[in-house]
Amino acid sequence: MPAKAPPRNALYAQSGGVTATINATAWGLIDEARRARRGGRPIGRIFAARNGILGVLREDLVDLSAESTAALAALRHTPGGAFGSCRYDLPPLPQGRVHYARIAEVFRAHGIGYFFYNGGNGSAETAQQLATILPDFGWPVISLAVPKTIDNDIVGSDVSPGFGSVAKFAATSLREASADLASMADSSTKVFVMEVMGRHTGWIAAACGLALPQGGDGPLLLLVPEITFDRRRFLEAVSARVARHGWCVVAVAEGLRLADGRRLTAAGGDGIPGHEQLGGVAPLLAAMLRRELRLKVHWSVLDYVQRAARHLASAVDVAQSEAVGHEALRLALAGHGNVMPVIRRDSDRPYRWHIEAAALETLMNRERKLPRRFLSRDGWRLSAAGRAYFSPLIRGEAVQPFADGLPVHARLRLRPLPRRLDSPWREPGRHKTGRKPR
Amino acid sequence: MPAKAPPRNALYAQSGGVTATINATAWGLIDEARRARRGGRPIGRIFAARNGILGVLREDLVDLSAESTAALAALRHTPGGAFGSCRYDLPPLPQGRVHYARIAEVFRAHGIGYFFYNGGNGSAETAQQLATILPDFGWPVISLAVPKTIDNDIVGSDVSPGFGSVAKFAATSLREASADLASMADSSTKVFVMEVMGRHTGWIAAACGLALPQGGDGPLLLLVPEITFDRRRFLEAVSARVARHGWCVVAVAEGLRLADGRRLTAAGGDGIPGHEQLGGVAPLLAAMLRRELRLKVHWSVLDYVQRAARHLASAVDVAQSEAVGHEALRLALAGHGNVMPVIRRDSDRPYRWHIEAAALETLMNRERKLPRRFLSRDGWRLSAAGRAYFSPLIRGEAVQPFADGLPVHARLRLRPLPRRLDSPWREPGRHKTGRKPR
Repeated sequence: MPAKAPPRNALYAQSGGVTATINATAWGLIDEARRARRGGRPIGRIFAARNGILGVLREDLVDLSAESTAALAALRHTPGGAFGSCRYDLPPLPQGRVHYARIAEVFRAHGIGYFFYNGGNGSAETAQQLATILPDFGWPVISLAVPKTIDNDIVGSDVSPGFGSVAKFAATSLREASADLASMADSSTKVFVMEVMGRHTGWIAAACGLALPQGGDGPLLLLVPEITFDRRRFLEAVSARVARHGWCVVAVAEGLRLADGRRLTAAGGDGIPGHEQLGGVAPLLAAMLRRELRLKVHWSVLDYVQRAARHLASAVDVAQSEAVGHEALRLALAGHGNVMPVIRRDSDRPYRWHIEAAALETLMNRERKLPRRFLSRDGWRLSAAGRAYFSPLIRGEAVQPFADGLPVHARLRLRPLPRRLDSPWREPGRHKTGRKPR
Repeated sequence: MPAKAPPRNALYAQSGGVTATINATAWGLIDEARRARRGGRPIGRIFAARNGILGVLREDLVDLSAESTAALAALRHTPGGAFGSCRYDLPPLPQGRVHYARIAEVFRAHGIGYFFYNGGNGSAETAQQLATILPDFGWPVISLAVPKTIDNDIVGSDVSPGFGSVAKFAATSLREASADLASMADSSTKVFVMEVMGRHTGWIAAACGLALPQGGDGPLLLLVPEITFDRRRFLEAVSARVARHGWCVVAVAEGLRLADGRRLTAAGGDGIPGHEQLGGVAPLLAAMLRRELRLKVHWSVLDYVQRAARHLASAVDVAQSEAVGHEALRLALAGHGNVMPVIRRDSDRPYRWHIEAAALETLMNRERKLPRRFLSRDGWRLSAAGRAYFSPLIRGEAVQPFADGLPVHARLRLRPLPRRLDSPWREPGRHKTGRKPR
């Protein structure tokens, strides 16, 4: 009598730049898997790969059954990627033959039947590659992408999990800094420039438009990569706001570009050689304002602080992040591979949304730009449509436990799954990419 | 029968770089004044000057009786200086004759008997000048300084109101960013440098040592102005931490100095001309690490964002900020001028503190440096004494109301008090200083 086939195990991994809520997605998926298993559904154990697909190649897996429910539930309020992320793209065939063969071998050795890759546009391609290529290597899996990116540039999803929280933190910080600046402007600093992430898109910078209630020529200017930077117009706009309000705040995306397509930072702002290695468009704009307008200027570059700011996460974002995790598992159990659960908006007010499955081929390696209509005609501020889009995404303050005055994060055991393969992974040549290294 | 002298009015003003909790002090003082007046104590109306002592010179005062109690109470959770601050020092005598004459004139016109100047070391001198000089101009007042500064450099106060909150925000942000970095380090960024305020002292940078539980050669390095920057030692320390932990985070004070006493930013880090105008020691260190260690580095400059971050204020700090406001009013009513209410620590665990009055002459224009014993012998991390000092100051999460996902701040009417003087203020010549312009 043949033995009954054991249920297929599930493997979860994180990829690309992490967010304040990617671990909430991990929790949602793990929680759903544990419930499904207890309910007798055809799912075995649940594992995680360390450092994304690299952990699969290296057979560096952890056994989540070794973790307590309390530790796993704490993922809901833990920033960063609890299992480690990576910047690594699988080469396409035929160069990638050795990679796919290795992955099939690792999956077979550990009985992996479901694979979940939690990332952005690039990671979606990896999930798609495994879904479509592994059958040729003798080990078909149900492979899904699970969305995550602060960049909010995933095509087909109304919002990307992780974005609402960074938007909330950035807009809050700009509102607070505006109160500070307004009190200093009479005899000291007149302008504050805050740089946020966004190499190619201005989603986060635009969300900063929520910081102030604004019509007309308000004291807040937005600078996004989708609109070419015009030095003269910018200086005039700042000058006019300082004359009118006494002060001006600027939210600028790191990827701000000149008319010739170069980034301001690459171009050194004013062509001063050597500056590009320092990075930071905010200090360039600050130097320009000081020199040209003779104003005292302060500037800030938020960098990782913004995308890790779980202490001020959006409750809507945390709920959506967790929900895509749950839904990914349900889709997999229903046999739907090669898809990503994405968020669709049903209405702005009240804000209603639901999750659908989108085919990976329709969205991978594409990039969603900020629609021009989300900004005012002059480009300096949010339009009514922009406000209607962004406003619901930052609603609610997600729970964050503190101890001794500091946030408490999950402490997982990350117990290694015993290796079953004889050979370690050796990267053939140097293949290491990342579409948007940050 | 001579008319009974009307009770003396009180004037409150804000000075220097503002904090997330200076308005809590304003609320404490105003609340105490209103209670005292209702209780029949010898105090009249309460006014505020706009933009500090400049508002006094300009006779630019607001009448706080025009504000609702709800609006005033909202000052407890409003960052920035609600009445405007200034960077302005009164000239000493004899150059300052025209200033003191004007101030006496304004005070007389509005019946000001109590003056409260909410600021740091420099502002304490202004309060002292008014206490000691105005009698010679025929209008003695009870003049007090009320402490506030994120720099934590007020001599004689165990902690400066405003510091605990910036310390909590900075340490939280570094803890969160560390979680982010740890998940990226395997295939991407290895080092994160976070720059905090501190031109002359390393109090905030040192408080970042709370971000990680740390003994031995942990992955967190602290760089403070009190310890000369040694490039070789720094590169070795980062290199060792990356080798050991896979990653390293650095908290650096903006005023980090070289052995010759120059700031790193002024010296351009490596002598690259032109960099100093950009400001920012974090990008200089990041460039140094990339070049010398060939590591991927991220960096952040928090600037105003850190000192305005009321959304994450320390409950201890807010309580202390409010308490010094209450106590300043009580001291004034008891006839104690020329003093500042300062905070004294009674014990670390449990944390206990009380307020005393310190003579302004003992503390004004001095600066309290970070004690060397608060750092480990190698200078890279907190010592046990440092942990015992900083830890209680960041405890508790102060209430912050939100609406539509963003913090709600006080909206005051700021109704101008009708002017009683005929002449406007004209600044004699250009006298405008600020010991520590920021």
